[in-house]
Amino acid sequence: MSWNTFGRLFRFTTWGESHGPALGAVVDGCPPGLEISEEMIQPFLDARRPGQSKFTTQRNEADLVKILSGVFEGRTTGTPISLMIENTDQRSKDYSEVAKSYRPGHADYAYDAKYGFRDYRGGGRSSARETAARVAAGGVARLVIPEVRIVGYVSQIGDDRIDMANFDEAQIRANPFFCPDAEAAKRWEAIVDQARLDGSSIGAVVECVAYGVPAGWGAPLYAKLDSELAAAMMSINAVKGVEIGDGFAAATLRGEQNADAMRPGPDGRPLFEANHAGGIAGGISTGQPVVVRVAFKPTSSILIPVPTINNEGEAAEIRTKGRHDPCVGIRGVPVVEAMMALVLADQKLIDRGQVSAPRA
Amino acid sequence: MSWNTFGRLFRFTTWGESHGPALGAVVDGCPPGLEISEEMIQPFLDARRPGQSKFTTQRNEADLVKILSGVFEGRTTGTPISLMIENTDQRSKDYSEVAKSYRPGHADYAYDAKYGFRDYRGGGRSSARETAARVAAGGVARLVIPEVRIVGYVSQIGDDRIDMANFDEAQIRANPFFCPDAEAAKRWEAIVDQARLDGSSIGAVVECVAYGVPAGWGAPLYAKLDSELAAAMMSINAVKGVEIGDGFAAATLRGEQNADAMRPGPDGRPLFEANHAGGIAGGISTGQPVVVRVAFKPTSSILIPVPTINNEGEAAEIRTKGRHDPCVGIRGVPVVEAMMALVLADQKLIDRGQVSAPRA
Amino acid sequence: MSWNTFGRLFRFTTWGESHGPALGAVVDGCPPGLEISEEMIQPFLDARRPGQSKFTTQRNEADLVKILSGVFEGRTTGTPISLMIENTDQRSKDYSEVAKSYRPGHADYAYDAKYGFRDYRGGGRSSARETAARVAAGGVARLVIPEVRIVGYVSQIGDDRIDMANFDEAQIRANPFFCPDAEAAKRWEAIVDQARLDGSSIGAVVECVAYGVPAGWGAPLYAKLDSELAAAMMSINAVKGVEIGDGFAAATLRGEQNADAMRPGPDGRPLFEANHAGGIAGGISTGQPVVVRVAFKPTSSILIPVPTINNEGEAAEIRTKGRHDPCVGIRGVPVVEAMMALVLADQKLIDRGQVSAPRA
Amino acid sequence: MSWNTFGRLFRFTTWGESHGPALGAVVDGCPPGLEISEEMIQPFLDARRPGQSKFTTQRNEADLVKILSGVFEGRTTGTPISLMIENTDQRSKDYSEVAKSYRPGHADYAYDAKYGFRDYRGGGRSSARETAARVAAGGVARLVIPEVRIVGYVSQIGDDRIDMANFDEAQIRANPFFCPDAEAAKRWEAIVDQARLDGSSIGAVVECVAYGVPAGWGAPLYAKLDSELAAAMMSINAVKGVEIGDGFAAATLRGEQNADAMRPGPDGRPLFEANHAGGIAGGISTGQPVVVRVAFKPTSSILIPVPTINNEGEAAEIRTKGRHDPCVGIRGVPVVEAMMALVLADQKLIDRGQVSAPRA
Repeated sequence: MSWNTFGRLFRFTTWGESHGPALGAVVDGCPPGLEISEEMIQPFLDARRPGQSKFTTQRNEADLVKILSGVFEGRTTGTPISLMIENTDQRSKDYSEVAKSYRPGHADYAYDAKYGFRDYRGGGRSSARETAARVAAGGVARLVIPEVRIVGYVSQIGDDRIDMANFDEAQIRANPFFCPDAEAAKRWEAIVDQARLDGSSIGAVVECVAYGVPAGWGAPLYAKLDSELAAAMMSINAVKGVEIGDGFAAATLRGEQNADAMRPGPDGRPLFEANHAGGIAGGISTGQPVVVRVAFKPTSSILIPVPTINNEGEAAEIRTKGRHDPCVGIRGVPVVEAMMALVLADQKLIDRGQVSAPRA
Repeated sequence: MSWNTFGRLFRFTTWGESHGPALGAVVDGCPPGLEISEEMIQPFLDARRPGQSKFTTQRNEADLVKILSGVFEGRTTGTPISLMIENTDQRSKDYSEVAKSYRPGHADYAYDAKYGFRDYRGGGRSSARETAARVAAGGVARLVIPEVRIVGYVSQIGDDRIDMANFDEAQIRANPFFCPDAEAAKRWEAIVDQARLDGSSIGAVVECVAYGVPAGWGAPLYAKLDSELAAAMMSINAVKGVEIGDGFAAATLRGEQNADAMRPGPDGRPLFEANHAGGIAGGISTGQPVVVRVAFKPTSSILIPVPTINNEGEAAEIRTKGRHDPCVGIRGVPVVEAMMALVLADQKLIDRGQVSAPRA
Repeated sequence: MSWNTFGRLFRFTTWGESHGPALGAVVDGCPPGLEISEEMIQPFLDARRPGQSKFTTQRNEADLVKILSGVFEGRTTGTPISLMIENTDQRSKDYSEVAKSYRPGHADYAYDAKYGFRDYRGGGRSSARETAARVAAGGVARLVIPEVRIVGYVSQIGDDRIDMANFDEAQIRANPFFCPDAEAAKRWEAIVDQARLDGSSIGAVVECVAYGVPAGWGAPLYAKLDSELAAAMMSINAVKGVEIGDGFAAATLRGEQNADAMRPGPDGRPLFEANHAGGIAGGISTGQPVVVRVAFKPTSSILIPVPTINNEGEAAEIRTKGRHDPCVGIRGVPVVEAMMALVLADQKLIDRGQVSAPRA
Repeated sequence: MSWNTFGRLFRFTTWGESHGPALGAVVDGCPPGLEISEEMIQPFLDARRPGQSKFTTQRNEADLVKILSGVFEGRTTGTPISLMIENTDQRSKDYSEVAKSYRPGHADYAYDAKYGFRDYRGGGRSSARETAARVAAGGVARLVIPEVRIVGYVSQIGDDRIDMANFDEAQIRANPFFCPDAEAAKRWEAIVDQARLDGSSIGAVVECVAYGVPAGWGAPLYAKLDSELAAAMMSINAVKGVEIGDGFAAATLRGEQNADAMRPGPDGRPLFEANHAGGIAGGISTGQPVVVRVAFKPTSSILIPVPTINNEGEAAEIRTKGRHDPCVGIRGVPVVEAMMALVLADQKLIDRGQVSAPRA
């Protein structure tokens, strides 16, 4: 069974495979009257677009988004918004090897175990190309939360982390790594290029901060803001870990170290002395920046041969030829940003569903 | 708005506050004909029960579970199972300080911001007492997945990790820390006791492994097994991070290091040479053990005073008196196990919904 | 599999059987800050309470509702509201006949076919006693929609309809039939009593009107207000038909007869010349009264013997002894009202989820 | 807010407007391995296609369905199936009158009240063109339930009913009315033609029977088979009433008249002496044919002028020019059949989710 819808009030459903004619998303529950155009969504797809440097896959897709419904005279109507992106560079290469042997780390074996059957061309539905549809949906979500500014970046490749002292937001779009630390970006060129030349790949960590989220978003207990973010991020291809705020580092602290002490702020709202909590307490936003950290494993498609089995259960060895991202975490940045926007849009609408509460 | 139901086919809804008359869970979608009794569920609640050592809260609750519906002649009927646990030790202490001032790290400020209003007695709905209801529901979930064995334990307190060379499953229930490493358990006595004596608290990491999950559970893309586990774990009080398999460590690896190579197994199923993936690929179980790691922050309730603000937005200072767990991660073990069981039961039923697939 | 939750933002889950210790409902998604008490909900249960005349079942239940969670200092907190009603008059009669033979018209055979197993005491989960939990939940829903006044009544018993010329709202609570036409009520005494004396039963039609619903509630296309009402009403025991506005009579009309012509109203809102549509167009409320009509079949439990089969598939004959409503539609009135309130509360909250629309 | 997804395990989401470039459906949760092609779905769209006689709208649409995802080598893969139908005959007529004045009986006023804004071209999202997407999705649903045969037909136009003595299934596709009674079909020619010539329209009743549904489908209490069918049918444009089995006629009966007595059948399953219940008891199928009856109001678009108001709240009069079905119920037949298939496919999958029940 598959489940391709995410969200509670602001919902999106994605469809499409790596090598089908197109992929897309249907966004349902978007409020009416918002200005929207393909031009407002395209830049997010452009940021994710493959083939922009030697550090990402050489698949060449224009990834042009078309809006097929839900918009009238340049505004959302409140009805479902159908977004479609045509696949234009799905090469008809020889998939006979992938069809027969399971690529370790990929979904190949699991899909066969589940469905008894799989579309093996380019990974089919489990290809990261699906994330183009999420990014398009995320572009719509951003229209719902104009008060929020989302900043995503790569904070680590392999075991080389950025130095927060060098953090410069302007750098993020200035290098091929979405890296806010110009010095780290230079080092990463060598690291990622070496992985690429070795026919290997390398893992990465993406951080994402949402500024401007007011206190009060989050639906306890089983649609807590952090719970929804964890689900959203863990649903992205190659993601193996999610942290909110200090995350695993918080496990090493004592209570007084982890306390985000408060002081009176100028407008009646608190000033927090720290943000160990990543902007979320009890599953509800506190008004501080919402901070998420996401671990991407190294791309499973590598040229280095790996022992595996084939469809018949016999021993085999596989090298994954073709066009791949040597560091799939890099292009994960626009996807993480999109999932952040999608979760926040949903929580904002859920929150508006309240009718009688006086607000702090 | 609140959202207190979790699951898709096997669903549970919890209700209740720290200081109300009772709390409970309604489990809906449980298959019929399963043997069930209060005695089969009670041991899981006993494992979570407070007051069992000086390392956990001194609140003294029997936590006796009652089954109010859905069972006939000792078997589930397929109708909703209502589970209730009475609160018996909710002391009528003076809550005037907590009513007025926000405890940093707690949900106090966020709840007021969201609801304009909160039940401040013992944290109300945001109290970890709610997890008793989850543990009861988890006891029902285990009946649905008899093929699965779930083993949870504390793997780290503060920055002191267990040594996997010392791993002894029998130790887990033999010390007050759910610690599989007898030597680490000794060291933790001092660490946790010191935190307690200092009026402080300490963080922890809980690991949980599910053995016996067959290949094929998981509903891609937005109810992937790992995505559901991430949501489930992040919904637990005090959790700030979730990893599947190697988690954040995978971000530091190269592709060939992270590959879980396969070889033919005796029964046609693969033997994996490693389990970096934690038993999940493409959001679907691979037949390997499912491995989750969960970071708990230190308990926010500490005797050490912390600067804060009150309801009026004025500066204040708060010490959280009362009965608290110095290390909330310890009693997190039965809760993490319960959430694992609940997610797996749901995915098993979803998977059974398929009608025509031949199975690998 | 069972599905015992209804609603999207304002959701309730019921649990309990006819002969268990209790039954109840968990209401989730109720806005915070609403004044609430058991006394505010009890009158709705009292209206539905059995044993109040010879025209309803002689089962004697106090049906006292207890609020177990979600309320603090007399107001809703925004967290789940657990409502419980104890069963006090579930007699330990001999169920051996019902256990073995299927009562035609009842769920007996279907439950066995589905679950392989059933709680046969008093119909178990399929007993109309479950509707007590809905009525309690409906009492909470009414708090969410104070602008709406809901009026339900029996409009027909057997083939004897009320005369709308005699409609007197004050009459509804003045006779044992919830009948707004005093003359019809007199005739119905004879009809229902005859059915009772014959060991038979009789069908009925319940109408329910909601005044004060503003234009704009309803979530097209698959949670249209009329679609939600149809699902809600058809989920009630013994209901076999649902109409909105003119319903089946509309099928006999021509377009100009069915048009609800509009004229300018004093406050900019339209005055409608008729309400064939029952207050709903395109699945959205129009600001006119919302009108629903619900058909109840005759109670299936009758003393007149009916041919049937037993568990072994052998021929049998069954007479359903015990305490039954000779006309189950009568006590359907408070249930239909409750479902109306529950749907409207949900739609109101969904509607509030919108963020940017100017309102007509 | 809008809600454009229907179903629980087998789910579909529709999108698109009358005058946009295309409309479509995403079917999620379809089991893998089913044979599928565009040719297998097209006949259902052909049955619904406009412009096939003078008794339906003269809009001329090929309504060719394209499958964009979820299929590989002629079989479903278990991933979402995206279906698209291009709009080819959306004429650029003058909509200035409809843009300004509300058409009584249409969704115009309600949409404006809800969304503050509407796509007035051809009714936008509230156009019955959306049902093409449902019919396509229904074509996929039928693949999931090969054991079920669905027969829909018009049983009444205006107040002229078919004579069941004349029922001939072969007639249904032999006349432009989906009428199983050849004599009634002849009479209806005159009735519908007169309505058309008068610039008026006429209502109709559609009946739909599903043969072959086994006992045991249906998810009590709030996803009962009859409740789901009621929601499904009431979500169709112009529908104002739904009956299961005898429906409102059951309200006129006594218990012994309404009892579907059972006798032992040859294969251990019961033989029922009647089917007043329409194949559903307690919300669960009994193994008898499932019978639904659906009331369609007369098309609201008529040439006869009707008083109304305009956007400014001023008095106006409107005649709805353009291409319309004089009896929208006729083309409702394939839509009702599609909704029946969609509900049954969903319930079948839900039912399969059970794991341990022995089956009757």
